[in-house]
Amino acid sequence: MNGKKVKHVEIKPGMKVRELVDEMGKAGVFSAGRLAEAVDIYLEMLDSDATVFLGVSGALVAGGLRQVLCEAIAKDLVDVIVTTGANVVHDLLEAFGGRHLRGEPFFDDAKLRKQGISRIYDAYLEQSAFELFEDNIQPLLLEITKQEKRMSTAKLLREIGLRLHDDNSFIRMAARKGVPVFAPALIDSVFGLQAWLFSQDHELVLDVLLDVKEMFEIAHGAENSGAVILGGGVPKNFILQSKLMAPTPFKYAIQITMDRPEHGGLSGATLEEAKSWGKVAPDAKLVTVIGDATILFPVLIAGVLGGRSVKSKI
Amino acid sequence: MNGKKVKHVEIKPGMKVRELVDEMGKAGVFSAGRLAEAVDIYLEMLDSDATVFLGVSGALVAGGLRQVLCEAIAKDLVDVIVTTGANVVHDLLEAFGGRHLRGEPFFDDAKLRKQGISRIYDAYLEQSAFELFEDNIQPLLLEITKQEKRMSTAKLLREIGLRLHDDNSFIRMAARKGVPVFAPALIDSVFGLQAWLFSQDHELVLDVLLDVKEMFEIAHGAENSGAVILGGGVPKNFILQSKLMAPTPFKYAIQITMDRPEHGGLSGATLEEAKSWGKVAPDAKLVTVIGDATILFPVLIAGVLGGRSVKSKI
Amino acid sequence: MNGKKVKHVEIKPGMKVRELVDEMGKAGVFSAGRLAEAVDIYLEMLDSDATVFLGVSGALVAGGLRQVLCEAIAKDLVDVIVTTGANVVHDLLEAFGGRHLRGEPFFDDAKLRKQGISRIYDAYLEQSAFELFEDNIQPLLLEITKQEKRMSTAKLLREIGLRLHDDNSFIRMAARKGVPVFAPALIDSVFGLQAWLFSQDHELVLDVLLDVKEMFEIAHGAENSGAVILGGGVPKNFILQSKLMAPTPFKYAIQITMDRPEHGGLSGATLEEAKSWGKVAPDAKLVTVIGDATILFPVLIAGVLGGRSVKSKI
Amino acid sequence: MNGKKVKHVEIKPGMKVRELVDEMGKAGVFSAGRLAEAVDIYLEMLDSDATVFLGVSGALVAGGLRQVLCEAIAKDLVDVIVTTGANVVHDLLEAFGGRHLRGEPFFDDAKLRKQGISRIYDAYLEQSAFELFEDNIQPLLLEITKQEKRMSTAKLLREIGLRLHDDNSFIRMAARKGVPVFAPALIDSVFGLQAWLFSQDHELVLDVLLDVKEMFEIAHGAENSGAVILGGGVPKNFILQSKLMAPTPFKYAIQITMDRPEHGGLSGATLEEAKSWGKVAPDAKLVTVIGDATILFPVLIAGVLGGRSVKSKI
Repeated sequence: MNGKKVKHVEIKPGMKVRELVDEMGKAGVFSAGRLAEAVDIYLEMLDSDATVFLGVSGALVAGGLRQVLCEAIAKDLVDVIVTTGANVVHDLLEAFGGRHLRGEPFFDDAKLRKQGISRIYDAYLEQSAFELFEDNIQPLLLEITKQEKRMSTAKLLREIGLRLHDDNSFIRMAARKGVPVFAPALIDSVFGLQAWLFSQDHELVLDVLLDVKEMFEIAHGAENSGAVILGGGVPKNFILQSKLMAPTPFKYAIQITMDRPEHGGLSGATLEEAKSWGKVAPDAKLVTVIGDATILFPVLIAGVLGGRSVKSKI
Repeated sequence: MNGKKVKHVEIKPGMKVRELVDEMGKAGVFSAGRLAEAVDIYLEMLDSDATVFLGVSGALVAGGLRQVLCEAIAKDLVDVIVTTGANVVHDLLEAFGGRHLRGEPFFDDAKLRKQGISRIYDAYLEQSAFELFEDNIQPLLLEITKQEKRMSTAKLLREIGLRLHDDNSFIRMAARKGVPVFAPALIDSVFGLQAWLFSQDHELVLDVLLDVKEMFEIAHGAENSGAVILGGGVPKNFILQSKLMAPTPFKYAIQITMDRPEHGGLSGATLEEAKSWGKVAPDAKLVTVIGDATILFPVLIAGVLGGRSVKSKI
Repeated sequence: MNGKKVKHVEIKPGMKVRELVDEMGKAGVFSAGRLAEAVDIYLEMLDSDATVFLGVSGALVAGGLRQVLCEAIAKDLVDVIVTTGANVVHDLLEAFGGRHLRGEPFFDDAKLRKQGISRIYDAYLEQSAFELFEDNIQPLLLEITKQEKRMSTAKLLREIGLRLHDDNSFIRMAARKGVPVFAPALIDSVFGLQAWLFSQDHELVLDVLLDVKEMFEIAHGAENSGAVILGGGVPKNFILQSKLMAPTPFKYAIQITMDRPEHGGLSGATLEEAKSWGKVAPDAKLVTVIGDATILFPVLIAGVLGGRSVKSKI
Repeated sequence: MNGKKVKHVEIKPGMKVRELVDEMGKAGVFSAGRLAEAVDIYLEMLDSDATVFLGVSGALVAGGLRQVLCEAIAKDLVDVIVTTGANVVHDLLEAFGGRHLRGEPFFDDAKLRKQGISRIYDAYLEQSAFELFEDNIQPLLLEITKQEKRMSTAKLLREIGLRLHDDNSFIRMAARKGVPVFAPALIDSVFGLQAWLFSQDHELVLDVLLDVKEMFEIAHGAENSGAVILGGGVPKNFILQSKLMAPTPFKYAIQITMDRPEHGGLSGATLEEAKSWGKVAPDAKLVTVIGDATILFPVLIAGVLGGRSVKSKI
């Protein structure tokens, strides 16, 4: 107990996101208190020039977060990204001119199948999007493998990013800003299927041990570092395990998730558990906010970009 | 499928809450899309002069939402409230000069017990707060029962509210604005214990069938009505069942919850299920946002007070 | 750490529920370990002749647990019950000759409405069931109020139970075994609506302060006591708060729930939190199993009735 | 609505797991009904000689399910496995003579770190276990890479499995029974770190495009197939996507998970969603049971091994 009183959140018409987060910080309890703490910890990471590792699980790009990711990279809020094959595919697909459509979460899926629509909760993809993906990714793979045939996923995504022309692609922005994008389970996606098709009559080896190598070099060199983890899965674990052989654990970690610890998977594990493994420091600043990243990540980034607040330090 | 493209959320430094909600509405998918939809539905309720029933479960007052509730009542966003004994106790306790303190969610509870502190997740209450509560509620009950000895919870809370002097009390604000506050399970709280103590040597009957009566009169008269439900429990069910014998079901309903339908309880039930009971209209505008009310209710209210947006209608 | 090795669960064709629980107990970790621990704690409660308070939230009777409840009462596994209006209604409805039907969890609810079917997740109730309920409950209320007009919910449910003729009714079994059934929010159900209708032209006062009184007398007298809590809501809180003014807190508590602590409501609160309030003893044996009661409660009861196992003590 | 009545679960002392599942099937509603349906679908898969794909996410081996997996393979209930690096590491670690210990889910993790203990919820691993792992895996990698230096994860795990001597290892059992074990994100684990260390001075390429190839050959050839999915993550997605280019989708699918669809990730997606992608057939038999696999998977397997029940067909 810090002896502070719970001050109640005050709403004002026309208030800014940063002001609302400050109000939640004044209250300081329950999930709202955690969210305000996450903004504070993020600001402290940035102030201390920590290397920020961002984990992006699920299909958050299809969920509307593509430009928030782009903006976070552009504004130097992120130094390393680990993500899923899904997010890579959805970003590239839009970079190639495709689009996600707004649909219904409970629809007749057999009917959608007949209409040639693939559903991601309530985001819909037309069959033509996958054809567009194939038409564009195959020539890119051909061009890139002229130089190199054996690559990490991070290297491959950098090469792809440098060849995209869509300013709103987070993969392009990351490549241009020198932010590596790891997708250790890249094969577990439509990208993986396309890469396999390509490898049927071309030489291409996705050598994922090179991803381990490149990640460790970054983790090893990052004396002061923090993790911002959206959801669980491979992105969360790959970020945390990078510190298993590094001399300094994470000093900061923020986790936004709907997952829970009881079933024992790493996805829902507390950040405290990572202390026992030496992945985060014994005195690290940690916060978990239980909630949906499509809402909370935009609030977090808007809060961080809103700048440091005097009130949040009360 | 409405054929609309998922536009990606754009973050700008210094952006307003209302602008962020608009961005989520442009994306329109996953939980962020639902939250923007909730703001739209709430605005439509207000535009159409619907009678708004607000359900407030759990201990949201201890969680920092006391003034948001107060503001929502003051700004005419709410016409009827149904809540828990906990929220009544926590509001009164602060009105009597007590306070909630900020603590830790995982603390040694046996040690807290020795220190005389009662924990509500990470909000702490000192033993003195309960003494203060007793010292204030007993004379109030005495005064009120001089006039009437048999009351609904709504009637009792109105009488109490009119006798409070704290501008930030939602019970006082509701009483002054003529907004009834029902707490059908009021006895299931420290208030219940105090009322029972009082009834040991005074006459007091909490006649909850009167609550049913008063609620039905309101529900019956409200031709155009909507429900805004935070969490589940008795508040959710009591609001919905009020329409079982009323001629017109709810035309609008918003639900913010972390609970789910699979275990079959009403708390986690979909709003669609309420159609089968005739509690909401077959063509009602319904939205469920999965998330924590301490974060989402302030965003909802700030969004609503931010006014109608042109962009959200795109 | 108790230094015990995680032994792996072994499955044998034809194995008994009790044997499976023993295997989970040998493993001793994650949720399966918790479930085995719950069986052990329940057996210890019974061995020590503890007064067992059972909380039954939601609509578990509609979910198929009616006879498990009945059996638990018949076999002296339960001494006091606190439940919801829903469970009371669903039990009585079947006692009056009605039935729940098996349906679909995602169906067109507007269509169900037209067919006169009310949905509880995937359990369906025909309109005729409610007419049957009305036809039976009104004469019962008339008969009972000839003797007494002002009652606690526990008293009213006992009087009703004694007049039922269905061996599978848990309310009847409880009445016959002298197990009180409290439903502090009884008005928050179709029963409440019927009671209110009755009270329009008859005298009936549901005096819930009498429920507080009767509950406290039990809690006060139960020096050695334990709680078994299925879900949250009023049943959980009413059981726990009964110890706020009693000399001895609960020595044992088992909680089976899908709810979580982060949103601060009592429904999802840890049992440890109850220590800070003095509701459970500092050294109480506590276990929370995260899961659905329609699966876990039958396993728990089958495990308990399977008797004490040597293996579970390894 | 199928017009069937909800019959209530009956508990008998000494009842078998299969009998309890039958009782749940008679009730047929809520989560218990789903679990009984899962047993029925699994039996139907086996009766029809379907190729069964089992997805095992998280750390279920550390959670006590190692021998259940082994038994399921031995009894021909499974034809293909997709799992996480964690489950591979935990299985091998025990095969090498290591052990998991039973601990506490909320312990001082900084203290555990000092004691050299790594925590997986409430399963603990001593530092010596990782040394044992290294001492055993390095010589195995050396031996295996003498024959082949570029392998899929499935090929590598088969080679390792054939060289193990622990009858309780699921990787060994799978290798002996000809059941391939894919771990597409194998590098995302302590195994990945060891493989990377090995690759520093030896030649080893984990060519995950070969995993795609091998998986597709199986999926392509399996005209009649079903999926049993424990948790989400890469195991779930890799199984489902295997059907994207296969001529016949899954005819059966069972999912046991605590994850939910709203955040849009594939982990929590409904099985119905997979119809829109053509991963499961429009008329596939599908069931999702919300719950913890450490409890539900043993019940499922014990139910399946308990044989076909007449009652479950009522």
